[in-house]
Amino acid sequence: MSDPRRVAVVGVTGYTGFELARLLLRHPQIEKPVFYLRESSSHIRCLTELFPQLRGWGEAPCRPLSVDAIAASGAATVFLSTPHEASTELAPQLVAAGLRVVDLSGAFRFRDAATYTQWYQLPAPPQELLDEAVYGLPEIYADQLPAARLVANPGCYATSVILGLKPLVESGWIATERGIVCDCKSGATGAGKEPKREMQFAEVDENFRAYGLFTHRHTPEVTEHLGVSSDDVMFSTHLLPVARGILSTLYVWLNEPREASDVEALFRKFYADRPMVRLWPAGKLPELQHVVNTNFCDIGFALDASGRRLAVVSCLDNLGKGAAGQAVQNLNAMWKFDAKSGVI
Amino acid sequence: MSDPRRVAVVGVTGYTGFELARLLLRHPQIEKPVFYLRESSSHIRCLTELFPQLRGWGEAPCRPLSVDAIAASGAATVFLSTPHEASTELAPQLVAAGLRVVDLSGAFRFRDAATYTQWYQLPAPPQELLDEAVYGLPEIYADQLPAARLVANPGCYATSVILGLKPLVESGWIATERGIVCDCKSGATGAGKEPKREMQFAEVDENFRAYGLFTHRHTPEVTEHLGVSSDDVMFSTHLLPVARGILSTLYVWLNEPREASDVEALFRKFYADRPMVRLWPAGKLPELQHVVNTNFCDIGFALDASGRRLAVVSCLDNLGKGAAGQAVQNLNAMWKFDAKSGVI
Amino acid sequence: MSDPRRVAVVGVTGYTGFELARLLLRHPQIEKPVFYLRESSSHIRCLTELFPQLRGWGEAPCRPLSVDAIAASGAATVFLSTPHEASTELAPQLVAAGLRVVDLSGAFRFRDAATYTQWYQLPAPPQELLDEAVYGLPEIYADQLPAARLVANPGCYATSVILGLKPLVESGWIATERGIVCDCKSGATGAGKEPKREMQFAEVDENFRAYGLFTHRHTPEVTEHLGVSSDDVMFSTHLLPVARGILSTLYVWLNEPREASDVEALFRKFYADRPMVRLWPAGKLPELQHVVNTNFCDIGFALDASGRRLAVVSCLDNLGKGAAGQAVQNLNAMWKFDAKSGVI
Amino acid sequence: MSDPRRVAVVGVTGYTGFELARLLLRHPQIEKPVFYLRESSSHIRCLTELFPQLRGWGEAPCRPLSVDAIAASGAATVFLSTPHEASTELAPQLVAAGLRVVDLSGAFRFRDAATYTQWYQLPAPPQELLDEAVYGLPEIYADQLPAARLVANPGCYATSVILGLKPLVESGWIATERGIVCDCKSGATGAGKEPKREMQFAEVDENFRAYGLFTHRHTPEVTEHLGVSSDDVMFSTHLLPVARGILSTLYVWLNEPREASDVEALFRKFYADRPMVRLWPAGKLPELQHVVNTNFCDIGFALDASGRRLAVVSCLDNLGKGAAGQAVQNLNAMWKFDAKSGVI
Repeated sequence: MSDPRRVAVVGVTGYTGFELARLLLRHPQIEKPVFYLRESSSHIRCLTELFPQLRGWGEAPCRPLSVDAIAASGAATVFLSTPHEASTELAPQLVAAGLRVVDLSGAFRFRDAATYTQWYQLPAPPQELLDEAVYGLPEIYADQLPAARLVANPGCYATSVILGLKPLVESGWIATERGIVCDCKSGATGAGKEPKREMQFAEVDENFRAYGLFTHRHTPEVTEHLGVSSDDVMFSTHLLPVARGILSTLYVWLNEPREASDVEALFRKFYADRPMVRLWPAGKLPELQHVVNTNFCDIGFALDASGRRLAVVSCLDNLGKGAAGQAVQNLNAMWKFDAKSGVI
Repeated sequence: MSDPRRVAVVGVTGYTGFELARLLLRHPQIEKPVFYLRESSSHIRCLTELFPQLRGWGEAPCRPLSVDAIAASGAATVFLSTPHEASTELAPQLVAAGLRVVDLSGAFRFRDAATYTQWYQLPAPPQELLDEAVYGLPEIYADQLPAARLVANPGCYATSVILGLKPLVESGWIATERGIVCDCKSGATGAGKEPKREMQFAEVDENFRAYGLFTHRHTPEVTEHLGVSSDDVMFSTHLLPVARGILSTLYVWLNEPREASDVEALFRKFYADRPMVRLWPAGKLPELQHVVNTNFCDIGFALDASGRRLAVVSCLDNLGKGAAGQAVQNLNAMWKFDAKSGVI
Repeated sequence: MSDPRRVAVVGVTGYTGFELARLLLRHPQIEKPVFYLRESSSHIRCLTELFPQLRGWGEAPCRPLSVDAIAASGAATVFLSTPHEASTELAPQLVAAGLRVVDLSGAFRFRDAATYTQWYQLPAPPQELLDEAVYGLPEIYADQLPAARLVANPGCYATSVILGLKPLVESGWIATERGIVCDCKSGATGAGKEPKREMQFAEVDENFRAYGLFTHRHTPEVTEHLGVSSDDVMFSTHLLPVARGILSTLYVWLNEPREASDVEALFRKFYADRPMVRLWPAGKLPELQHVVNTNFCDIGFALDASGRRLAVVSCLDNLGKGAAGQAVQNLNAMWKFDAKSGVI
Repeated sequence: MSDPRRVAVVGVTGYTGFELARLLLRHPQIEKPVFYLRESSSHIRCLTELFPQLRGWGEAPCRPLSVDAIAASGAATVFLSTPHEASTELAPQLVAAGLRVVDLSGAFRFRDAATYTQWYQLPAPPQELLDEAVYGLPEIYADQLPAARLVANPGCYATSVILGLKPLVESGWIATERGIVCDCKSGATGAGKEPKREMQFAEVDENFRAYGLFTHRHTPEVTEHLGVSSDDVMFSTHLLPVARGILSTLYVWLNEPREASDVEALFRKFYADRPMVRLWPAGKLPELQHVVNTNFCDIGFALDASGRRLAVVSCLDNLGKGAAGQAVQNLNAMWKFDAKSGVI
C-alpha cells in the first residue's frame, strides 16, 4: 500500500520548505511528492504559486492539510516542516497512522521532556515518542535510522557544532576542564520567512550582531549529543549578512600536545564512509562558499605551534545539511537508498 | 519669540527621520532640535532610545506630538517626517500657528489636488495650501524659498530625474517626440522601516527587481516640474540590494548632433552656483559610492559617436539629497543660512 | 571513434568554466568530461584542486592543453571557455580535427570580420569559419544547431536583450523610429575572475554604477540578431552588487495601441515549445532571484494605460542561460539530446 | 614656526588614508592639511583626483613626499599612513626634524624589536624609538600622549580586544588558567585596497571565512597590552561580507560568580571619562551598525545564569576607532584639543 518512493511534505511556505521541495522534486528514488498546507495557505493548488522560480519543472500538487488524506495517499514518509507546536500535535497522529515521520522542528530532539519545555517554553510531546524518536544526525546515529518511525531532524547550529567536535570528545583529547567555546555565525534564512523588523534588509546589510548568548535553543542539543557537561561549554550565535550558511569556530584546549597530522587522522578515521562530511587538510580552512547550496558539512582546523590549542572550523548550509538536505539524508538512511541520492 | 535657530521635527522613527535628526544635531546654526513623536512612540523621552548609535552625542529630547506644544516651544520651523495623511492634517494647523513647515511627505507636491488624489488615492490638502506650497528643489526654486511658509520636499526619485534632465529640457535640445526614458534604481531604505516580506534581507540580498513600471507616484512630480508631457516619458523604478542611494539612467535623443563639450557646458552653466550638484567631466560617470552619506546630486553623461543619443547618469543618496539632506538645504534657503550649512 | 557522450572543456579556471564543469558533471547523457588547462594552470591534475567545493563528487581529470590529445581522446564536442584570442586560434584546429566546437568567447559571434575587429580590437578568425559558425541562441536558431560544427555561444547581455525583444521586432509592432532603449544590469561574475581594483569587494558592495554606455561589445550582437538598425538603439550596462544575474529593462514605443493580453499572446506564441524561456503573466514581473542558478530566461512586461508604451523585463543568470547553461543547451540541440537535459 | 593646527599626512591612497583625510578636513582645530604621496602617485596634485567623492569640499593639495618639504611646511604633526617598511624609514627622520609623528603602521607597536621581527618578518626600527614610542590607545595611555614624539597607532583588531577585556584583566576577575578566547570578525576594507583575488566581490559576497588562526599579527599586540600570557589566549580573525567594521566576541571564565550589575559597574568605572567607549547595559548588545562611520568602541556583555561564564562583545569601525579615527583621537590627546574634536 504505502510506497517508499512516495512522500508527503507538511508545510512548505518557508525557506526550509522550499529547499525540501527542491530536493525532493529532483530525488531519483522519489516519485512526485505531494505538499500539504496548513490553513492560511490552503487555497494554494500548485507549488509554483508559492515559488515561481519552480515554474517549468516543479509543478507539484498542494493540498489542504489532513492527516487522513496523507494516510490514504500511499505516502510512506512524511516530512514535517512545521512549527514546534504543530509537529507536537501532528507527529503522533501520523505515526499512529502507520507513516514514518521526519520532523524538522525542535519538538522531538530531546529525550527529556523537561529540557524541551525549559528551552522552548512549550508543552512537550508524549514521553513515549520522545523515547522512540531518533536524533537524525546520520553520521552519528546511522544504525538507528533504518528502523526509525520518528526522526528528529537536528538544529542547524547543533549539526555544525556536533560534527565539528564529536571526534575530539570521543577521543578524550579535550581538556574539558578548560572549557569549550563555540562561536557560531549564521545567514539570514535561519530566522525564517515571517517579516520582522530586525530582519529587514537595511537592518542586516552591512551589519553583524551577536544574539542568543548562553540562551540559544540549540545549546542543549549540542551538549546532549556531544556528551559534554553544559557547564563546560560557551555557545554563541551571530547573524551574518548572507542569505545562507553557518560557520562555527570551535575552540578547545588539548590535554596533551598533538601534531596536526594526528588531529587530521582522528577526524579522517571518525568520518570514513561518511560522504557528507568533507575534511580539509591541516592548514586549509573551509569557507561558506564551499558548502552553500550543498548537503556537505566541511571541517577544517588549525593547531597552534604548541600543539595544545585547537580551533576547528565547521561549516554547512543551514537550509541544506542544517535542515532540508539532512532531512533527505535521513530519508535515504531510513529506506536504505544510496546515501548520496538526491543530496549530491 | 520664535527663533530661526530652533526647529522641531515631527516623526523621527523611520530612516528619513533618523537622517534628519543626525543632520540637525550637527547643523551649526541650529540649537538643540526637539523631536515630537506620534502616539505609538509617545513614551520615548530621548532620541537615543530610538537610535542607540546616537549615544554620546545625540541625546535630544522627544515629546508627545502636540501642535500647541510646538507652537509654544519657540521653534520657527517644523519638519514633518510623517505619512501623507498626517502631513495633510498637521501642516495647515502648524502654518496657521505661525510656523514655517518643511513637509517630507507627498501631500503638497502638486499644484493640482486631482493629481494628488489620483496618484495617492487619498483626500488632498486644502487648495489654498497647494497653491502656496513651494516645491523644495532649491536648485530650481531658490527664489521662492526665502518667503515660503510651506515647503514640499521633493520625492527622492523625482529629485534625481529632474536635476538630471532640467538643463536639457530648458535648452530645447531634446527630441521629445522620440520620448524620454528614465530608468531609476534605489536602495532599500527607500521602502521605509515597517517590516514587509518583500523587504526582508533574504528577499533583497542577491536579488534585483523592477517595480512600479508606469505606476510610481513620483511620475507626475517628474513631468510637472520638468515641464514635459507625461505621454513622452517612460519612468521606471527598481530595487537595488544596497541600503542607500538612487542612480537614474536617463535616455534622450537630441534633435541635432552635439559635441560632448556642448553638453558639459550646458550643464555647467545651468548649475553654476549650485554647490549641491556636482557635474562630472564628459566620459566620466558618477557612482553611488560617491554620493552615499552626502547631500550631493552627481551628474555625468555619455554621448554616442553620432552626437544624437545621450545618456545622463544622475545619482544621490535617497536619504540625503533625496530626503533629509534636501530638507535641511531648504531650511538653509528659507532662512538664508549658508547653502552648505549642515549638509557638507 | 568519437562519442557524443564524451566532451572536453578547454579553460575552466574562471567563473564560467566552473559553472560549465558543474553542469557537465551532472549531465545525464555525458560521461566523465575531461578538462584541458592552458599553460599557467597546466600543473593541475584534478578539478577539485581548482574548486574545492567540488570535492566528493566532481573529481574530474585535468590535463595540459593539446589539440592532438583532445582529438585522440574520443571526445566529440569541445567547449572553449577561453579568451577571444585563444578561441580564434584553437577553434579552427579543433574543427579541422573533426571535433564539434562550442565557443564561449566573442570570436565567432559576427558574420562580418570587420565588426569583430572594430569592437574587439583584435584580428578576426578566418572568414570561412565566421560564415559557418552558428549563433548559439537555441530559441532562435534551433534549426541550424543539429548540423553545426562551430557554435558561437552568445553574450550574456545579448541573450537577455534579444530574447526580450525578438517577438516584438518580428511582429513589426515597435515604432522603431522612436528608438529602443535597453537598460541592462549585471552581477559581478560577469567581469571575470582576474583581480581588478574596481571589482574588489569594497568597490562593488553598497555601490552601483553604469559602464559601457554606447560602447559595450554586446551592442553589435544585439542589433545584428534582433535585426534592427544600430542607430535606433541605446544599449547600456550597469554593475549590480550581486554575484550572479542579469536583468534588462527594455523600453519600446508601440506603433498602435495594444492590450496587455495581445502582448502576452504574442510572446506565448513565439516561445511555445521553448522550455528555457518562461513568460510571466501580464502585471507580474520576474526578479533575479527567480533565475539565478538556473538556465531559464524569464520575461515579463508592463504596458501603460495608453497601450503605447511597453517595458519588457528580461532576466537570466549570466553564468547560466548567459553562458555555461546556454552552452549545454547548445550541446543538447547539436546532438538532439532532450532540450532540458542537464540544464533543469 | 611649527603650528599645532597644521598637519601633514603621508600616504593617502588607501582606505585608511581616505578616512583620515575626511576626518582632518572637518577637524575644527586643524587648518587645511597637506597630503604627501609616495612615488607611484606623485603626479597627483589634488586630493579629489584620488577621491572624487570629496569634490565640492575636500580640494586639499597633494605633494610628492619629501621629509625636508614636510619639515619646512610648518606642520607640527605628521600622520604616516604608509607600509611598515616606509614608516620604519620615515619616522626617525621626521622625529629628528622636530615633528611629532602618529604612525598607523605596525612598525612601532612593540617594545621588543624581536617581537616585531618575528611577527612581521621585517627589520625592526631603531630600539631607542621603540623605547620611546607610545602605544596610541588613549583610553589606556592618556597620560603619555601629551609628551609623545612618536605615537604607534594600534591595530584595529587589537583595539577592539584590548578595550573589551582590559577592565576584566585589571580587576583580576578572569580565571586565566581556563584561557581567553577572542573570536574577531572584520569587514573587507581591513584587507587594504590593493587588488587581490580573494578580495574580489564574488569571493567575499555571500561568503564568510576564518583566516589567521593563531597567526595574526595583532596577536602579540593584544597580549602585550592586555598583560596576559600568550599561552592563555586563542585569537582568531574572520572576514565578513561588509565594507567596514569589526566585532569581537570575547569569552572568559570568571574565577568566582558575579552579578551582571557587578560586571557593568566594573566597566563603567574603568571607562568613566572615556567618551569614545560606549557601554551597553547588561542584556543589550552593540551591533556593527551602531559604530560604523564613528570613532566609538561599543562594548556589551552577556553573563550566564551561573555568573561564571562571560561573553563580551566589542565593536568598532576598523577605519574609525580601529585606524584613522583613533589617529585623530591621538592628535587631540597630544595637543590637548578637546577629546571629541573632529571625531564625533
